[in-house]
Amino acid sequence: MPNPTAAMLVIGDEILSGRTKDTNTNYLACALTEAGVDLKEARVVSDEHDRIVAAVQELSKAYDHVFTSGGIGPTHDDITADAVGAAFDAHVDIREDARALLAAHYERQGSEFNDARKRMARIPDGATLIDNPVSVAPGFTIGNVHVMAGVPSVFKAMVATVLPTITGGQPLLSETLRVNIGEGDVAGAFGDLALAYPDLSFGSYPFQKDGVYGCNLVVRGTDGARLKMVVAELAKALGVEYV
Amino acid sequence: MPNPTAAMLVIGDEILSGRTKDTNTNYLACALTEAGVDLKEARVVSDEHDRIVAAVQELSKAYDHVFTSGGIGPTHDDITADAVGAAFDAHVDIREDARALLAAHYERQGSEFNDARKRMARIPDGATLIDNPVSVAPGFTIGNVHVMAGVPSVFKAMVATVLPTITGGQPLLSETLRVNIGEGDVAGAFGDLALAYPDLSFGSYPFQKDGVYGCNLVVRGTDGARLKMVVAELAKALGVEYV
Repeated sequence: MPNPTAAMLVIGDEILSGRTKDTNTNYLACALTEAGVDLKEARVVSDEHDRIVAAVQELSKAYDHVFTSGGIGPTHDDITADAVGAAFDAHVDIREDARALLAAHYERQGSEFNDARKRMARIPDGATLIDNPVSVAPGFTIGNVHVMAGVPSVFKAMVATVLPTITGGQPLLSETLRVNIGEGDVAGAFGDLALAYPDLSFGSYPFQKDGVYGCNLVVRGTDGARLKMVVAELAKALGVEYV
Repeated sequence: MPNPTAAMLVIGDEILSGRTKDTNTNYLACALTEAGVDLKEARVVSDEHDRIVAAVQELSKAYDHVFTSGGIGPTHDDITADAVGAAFDAHVDIREDARALLAAHYERQGSEFNDARKRMARIPDGATLIDNPVSVAPGFTIGNVHVMAGVPSVFKAMVATVLPTITGGQPLLSETLRVNIGEGDVAGAFGDLALAYPDLSFGSYPFQKDGVYGCNLVVRGTDGARLKMVVAELAKALGVEYV
């Protein structure tokens, strides 16, 4: 059975202006690879209702899971809950369990639980809350879309909550052969091997540093022993050592 | 006149598996912001012909410019030129000027100009070459799509070549007010200001470090003096100092 597929949707003008570097996609990519879920696409869209709705609809139809990050805070530009609700034609309002979590949190903190903070309890009908052990304001899952915070520490905590609920496939493993040979000189043998093992994935990533150049040849698949066998074959074809 | 719009398309399994962190999107985002081009969307797709073709077609219709990174090297997984050609229904073959550049380069290096390396001279009909001062193999522009290398140093050099050929708008400027106040306590005044100045963009970015928390309130627009005026108004509303 093939692994389930997933897409990442990053929501936020601050990524597209370059002000903030998105680190959540790479974190999710690594976590999904380990869990046996294939991340097939990632997108960044701006804080515009229609663009978020369109992206959520497109990605949730195309993939088994969609993970979003960003836009669930208390300010006016936090419009993700409403946009994801609209994408699923679900009514969005302040939900009692989310409100209660936040009310208790702000009471403990001695901060006012004002209208802005109440916005963070806006959850589409039919959604399941995602726990936020860092700053309380919950994420949620509706259909196959997991809506999570943009702040990296909160995003990570939410991924940790959601991942165990997903039935993953076999973790994708990789084996790398690093060679001090130009890509152009390994491409023939590497391409031949890719043709001979169509069930594995072959990628070449050149490097150049301090005058030394070469490439990392990466073979990916789910059977570790088989990867080692194929990389040994590659090393032999290139006349290099593989330990 | 509104600024021209752009999208970034990152091509590569290594980004989606988490093995490699994409730094090109952030680099491009900063460069475009400075040049007055609005980056509206970014995507990462895998090394699969049909997915690249679909993304190029969709993005090149939706935005004024599309920038791609990745997949123009000599190995079998470098399929960007063919996919972009297919997206524009353009024939792709080894082009004489690109071939000559590469042939001279490998002769200087004393490396064989083999079939794998000749693949890097495959350019769609009607494209304009993009100079590669780092490792010679050129990128190209076809229609409104600029096809560039994934290796960051080469990507940057190609952006430097392409950007001056694009008519930008007014650079997007920003003014930031950093406050040690929770987002929920500034959201009211910040949202009111966003309503009062609909031509500016307002974003709030919370931070939490070593027990100190607060947020950066960012106002973006093209008139620096106006931004300072609006941020001064914001500071006054929040009762904080703005220097």
